[in-house]
Amino acid sequence: MVTVTILGAGAMGSALATPAAAAGNRVRLWGTWLDDDLLAGLRAGRPHPRTGAPLAPGVGLHDAGGLAAALDGADLVAVAISSDGVLEVARRAAAAGLEPGTPLLLCTKGFGRRPDGTVDLLPPLIAAAVPAGCPVVAVGGPCKANEVAAGRPTAAVFAGADRAVVAGCADALTTPAYRVECGLDLPGVEAAAATKNVYAIAVGVCHGLTEAGGEPWHDLAAATFTQAVAEMRRLAAALGGREETVLGLAGLGDLEVTSLSGRNRVLGARVGRGQPPDQALAAMAAAGQTVEGAPAARLALELAAQHELDLPLLAAVNRVLDGASDPAAELAAAVLPS
Amino acid sequence: MVTVTILGAGAMGSALATPAAAAGNRVRLWGTWLDDDLLAGLRAGRPHPRTGAPLAPGVGLHDAGGLAAALDGADLVAVAISSDGVLEVARRAAAAGLEPGTPLLLCTKGFGRRPDGTVDLLPPLIAAAVPAGCPVVAVGGPCKANEVAAGRPTAAVFAGADRAVVAGCADALTTPAYRVECGLDLPGVEAAAATKNVYAIAVGVCHGLTEAGGEPWHDLAAATFTQAVAEMRRLAAALGGREETVLGLAGLGDLEVTSLSGRNRVLGARVGRGQPPDQALAAMAAAGQTVEGAPAARLALELAAQHELDLPLLAAVNRVLDGASDPAAELAAAVLPS
Repeated sequence: MVTVTILGAGAMGSALATPAAAAGNRVRLWGTWLDDDLLAGLRAGRPHPRTGAPLAPGVGLHDAGGLAAALDGADLVAVAISSDGVLEVARRAAAAGLEPGTPLLLCTKGFGRRPDGTVDLLPPLIAAAVPAGCPVVAVGGPCKANEVAAGRPTAAVFAGADRAVVAGCADALTTPAYRVECGLDLPGVEAAAATKNVYAIAVGVCHGLTEAGGEPWHDLAAATFTQAVAEMRRLAAALGGREETVLGLAGLGDLEVTSLSGRNRVLGARVGRGQPPDQALAAMAAAGQTVEGAPAARLALELAAQHELDLPLLAAVNRVLDGASDPAAELAAAVLPS
Repeated sequence: MVTVTILGAGAMGSALATPAAAAGNRVRLWGTWLDDDLLAGLRAGRPHPRTGAPLAPGVGLHDAGGLAAALDGADLVAVAISSDGVLEVARRAAAAGLEPGTPLLLCTKGFGRRPDGTVDLLPPLIAAAVPAGCPVVAVGGPCKANEVAAGRPTAAVFAGADRAVVAGCADALTTPAYRVECGLDLPGVEAAAATKNVYAIAVGVCHGLTEAGGEPWHDLAAATFTQAVAEMRRLAAALGGREETVLGLAGLGDLEVTSLSGRNRVLGARVGRGQPPDQALAAMAAAGQTVEGAPAARLALELAAQHELDLPLLAAVNRVLDGASDPAAELAAAVLPS
């Protein structure tokens, strides 16, 4: 039994309370300055609006002003903040007394910018924002928040540089339903987790084509999926990750689940059905739906350029998001044999 | 322009006439002794009942008794017969004058038995049934018959021992929509093509669980997909294939499309929704739906044992098909981290 503090009361933060509590820990859930309504609903016993599940029993709730209390004595801090807010929350946690040495379990997927403006994976950026010696452990694998919250069978991947720290995090959160594969390939898991959101948009476009015409475009979807895995391997390798990581739960497993459901798929499907991407993004934003894969597509393309990688499907996704007139043709040109 | 003879007037046989004709060839479609009704419908100009598409224009139709005429002067013979009939058709083709040296483009997916009763991939069994020097070229990749027939974008993989023969087959059939990746890894493509049907049943079970309860089991589906690819790699390698083949269009690409739709997925989904597998198979058989993955599951397990491979998901699929009482638990035990 340890004290687990979860930062972020969105879908994944509240979901992670299910295994954290079921494994017998003291669990605290801290909501950001944007999460007041979510906390109020959870305090009132209502299901979380984004997972449909009630919060696990016994979880302590802390609002934005209570960060120091939420962190006090925490053995493990899970970070479940959207990618555009995660560095700010890391800095606030540091100022609020995050203890050096506390492991940070990073559920956020995406990229960020270094002070010089170039693009990087999140762990080094977060490590620079928190006290020395707070090891970052990446969370990957096919873990939909609604299923984790409901306690359905889920395989997660935890990866970090220190084997004992990773094992400690896994021990704290493992339940019969929430199972954890431990590894050392932090960059591989992070690269896979961030890029799968981008490529799921592309697969979603194919599903939108199917929905629009009532005739399946599954062959193109599958060829797109295959090319996505190939490009995820190349990008992970360029970032110091292992290709095998991409070929496991953290890569093709997460791409599979992200292509089955979720916001990135939905964005792609809207575009495949013919909606201009800027209108699709605006409609989703109006419904409170952040699509992490859309900004990540731009950053991934920059990152690929930094590493002199030519990734045709990634480029095609960016053209589609820029409003290319024939998304199917863009994908076909990128994924079919020439 | 060459003469392409397609053996089998089922979904894939009639579908392959679309690229074969669009590429400018003389195309003949031969129906087996079970295909008389299909040929009658195509002669009458009706769409094929299994693809919904009309036959490509200009294709010559040959009924079961006209095998010799169908084969006379053929430069390339595509074999699109179900796995339980393919060796009989190969023997009949040999008796009907199949010329030595004619390439056989093998669309059939599955396993067969050697004369000693052990299990093998189909190409060596077919090679033993036809004249010497008829090279077998395996067809893999995510190619649904209805999409190939309709001319939607599709990526196929052709693989055989002789690079020039493979390239010749690809040149004959490539169109702007039907694109072919050429390779030399015949056992890898065949192993992937046969086993993906088996594993798509497992993914289908997860989709059936989702449909039954109205709550997603996508995390388990994605973990199952990941384990499937891992086991397909191991089996392909044991059979002399390359793991990279399994990681491309012929492996994870074909598994993706087969998990999205088709009879193997449907069988799994019926079982996931709670129907006993023998009833599900009987209902599908009564509707004229052969489920290749069900017999292939048994043969793949024998083949794995011949190679002393322990493949937990393959074993779980067999237990599920044997009527195991909790299919979700069988899959979870096989695919979640321990």
